[in-house]
Amino acid sequence: MNLKDYIDIIEDFPTEGISFKDITKLAANNEAFDYTIEELKKELEKEEIEYIIGPEARGFLFGSAVAYAMGVGFIPVRKEGKLPGEVISYTYKKEYGEDRLEIKKNAFKEGAKVAIVDDLLATGGTVKAATDLLKSMGADVRALAFVIELTELGGRELNKDVDIISLVKYPY
Amino acid sequence: MNLKDYIDIIEDFPTEGISFKDITKLAANNEAFDYTIEELKKELEKEEIEYIIGPEARGFLFGSAVAYAMGVGFIPVRKEGKLPGEVISYTYKKEYGEDRLEIKKNAFKEGAKVAIVDDLLATGGTVKAATDLLKSMGADVRALAFVIELTELGGRELNKDVDIISLVKYPY
Repeated sequence: MNLKDYIDIIEDFPTEGISFKDITKLAANNEAFDYTIEELKKELEKEEIEYIIGPEARGFLFGSAVAYAMGVGFIPVRKEGKLPGEVISYTYKKEYGEDRLEIKKNAFKEGAKVAIVDDLLATGGTVKAATDLLKSMGADVRALAFVIELTELGGRELNKDVDIISLVKYPY
Repeated sequence: MNLKDYIDIIEDFPTEGISFKDITKLAANNEAFDYTIEELKKELEKEEIEYIIGPEARGFLFGSAVAYAMGVGFIPVRKEGKLPGEVISYTYKKEYGEDRLEIKKNAFKEGAKVAIVDDLLATGGTVKAATDLLKSMGADVRALAFVIELTELGGRELNKDVDIISLVKYPY
């Protein structure tokens, strides 16, 4: 199955100059969605993952299905103020200004083997921040898994300390 | 399995007076998460569902795993401006002001049998708006399925035209 058949390219979204890769059709097609989850599972089963970590919001969409498929737990990473109770925060620099990620305190035991699942690897800044957050809590971050990788934006280089999986690459 | 053992009650979140039902521990526990998805699947398999609809963001977390488990497609409903390309918008009244939901145009064919999956049924206003949006596009909304139902807030009455499933009820 060629997943690119189910990915729409939307120009100038969310801002001018961005060629957005839209996974809505892929998720809505039961065969393409099943294939995507099975392929991510197959790659991640090589590691002994205990938890899938999913960044808000498309990381929930793919990550929770992968966690269920693998029989492991799912832990959300959210934007500031969205998670209730005690959280661990991580502030990181973006091109313009700062952003903050949060995860529940005591979300996992020290040494837990985890993988981050998200729809897209672009510059890799957010997943790098998520990895640093998880490592600061004692996680063993085994892999970063994406449906789509934009190969010319440096995300793989920025995250070269961690095993990176992607199912579809643009431009190739 | 008693799912309430995996649901934390967080008082005064996100605002004072709200007794928030936190599903983070449930999702992170592989047995509780698996049980939750299997139970939702079991209930929804009684209908011939073609698509699971998940409202942003916890509806993604449960809905996509249920869709994968059932072998059907997943369609996100998001807040304004988050979905790329052409969307159908639906504006609805909230206690204070208005809110807007969006779904991709042509997300499904007229007459498609769908179910909405979300974490929580409270007053039911948002899921009512999502149901109205789906019906306006020709969907056959067969069921609304929730992990948690707050039974004293009127959500079931507001959505009485549709079959409602919930796994755990508060206060009972």
